[in-house]
Amino acid sequence: MARTADKRVERSKAAVLAETYRQLTRSGISGVSIDEVSRVSGVSKTTIYRHWPSRSALLIDACSKLGHASQPPDTGTLRADLHALVTKLGEQLQSAAWATVYPSIVDAAEREAEIAALQTGLHMAFMAPFHAVVERARDRGEVQPEKPTPDVVAAVVGPLFYRRWFSKEPIDERFIEATIHAAVEAARSR
Amino acid sequence: MARTADKRVERSKAAVLAETYRQLTRSGISGVSIDEVSRVSGVSKTTIYRHWPSRSALLIDACSKLGHASQPPDTGTLRADLHALVTKLGEQLQSAAWATVYPSIVDAAEREAEIAALQTGLHMAFMAPFHAVVERARDRGEVQPEKPTPDVVAAVVGPLFYRRWFSKEPIDERFIEATIHAAVEAARSR
Repeated sequence: MARTADKRVERSKAAVLAETYRQLTRSGISGVSIDEVSRVSGVSKTTIYRHWPSRSALLIDACSKLGHASQPPDTGTLRADLHALVTKLGEQLQSAAWATVYPSIVDAAEREAEIAALQTGLHMAFMAPFHAVVERARDRGEVQPEKPTPDVVAAVVGPLFYRRWFSKEPIDERFIEATIHAAVEAARSR
Repeated sequence: MARTADKRVERSKAAVLAETYRQLTRSGISGVSIDEVSRVSGVSKTTIYRHWPSRSALLIDACSKLGHASQPPDTGTLRADLHALVTKLGEQLQSAAWATVYPSIVDAAEREAEIAALQTGLHMAFMAPFHAVVERARDRGEVQPEKPTPDVVAAVVGPLFYRRWFSKEPIDERFIEATIHAAVEAARSR
């Protein structure tokens, strides 16, 4: 009996999450309506709020489906590690669902503390492999001691984010190579 | 008689724009409600839509109040020109109303063509001084011919945007200097 009830709960939660994720990727975070989630999933609002105490709690769960950070590469050089990471980031920025949803999270984070905390968590997870490869390069002597790791990450990731969401210019192989080259040179020169 | 009517029209338009701007800076672009603008300004929706054919048209007018690009500096070196521009950008990112509103425009631009066009216009105007100082530096031989101007702009502006809206790390004097140094070196080296 208890197991049947558990399964029913799991099915309800999965239906709610799936519909929340659908609305999130279609309309951004401000476009998620609990009324509509309830209607489409067939799960009552009372039940939804029993599983997720707030709209933000549900959004956080749905956002965790947007993607997860990959293992950092370990090729032996900062340039090749960054090439692997930045090439993948460039592809994702131009095709992944999260690239379309992310501005809605950044926007809501300007006004809502819970969404700001959600954004911080997503950002740390997305950027962890970048920080890891720069720290390893530092251990090998490829990064000057006085150059902070976050500077190197900002020099690599900043121009790509700028092109995707602000200037809308192409993120092509030439641009990626030039951005990595500049960041690697800045990290190793005094 | 005609002049009195003109003045009344101007007053109504100003009241609508002021209230739209207030909602825009408080709640972002998705938080602007024409019903609420009409109620607070005391101008009927029919009259609002006589002056602005669509919600986007009104938003475009209100956004033009967010700020305007400054004249590009002309100090004689790329480094000093960028220092002036980037210091001002850093201040604005941390205090200007547009820095809080901009993510809502970026978000809406992902789904609405009219807002995307508005964003393009704002972006071109904001970035024009950066492009101008890099082009002047190119004329003086400070930028290698094979380094495109948009790359230099992305290397300078990208890391600041990244810190303001994504990593939320401080944009201090040290970071600004390091970012300018890296961009200037990348522009002038082969």
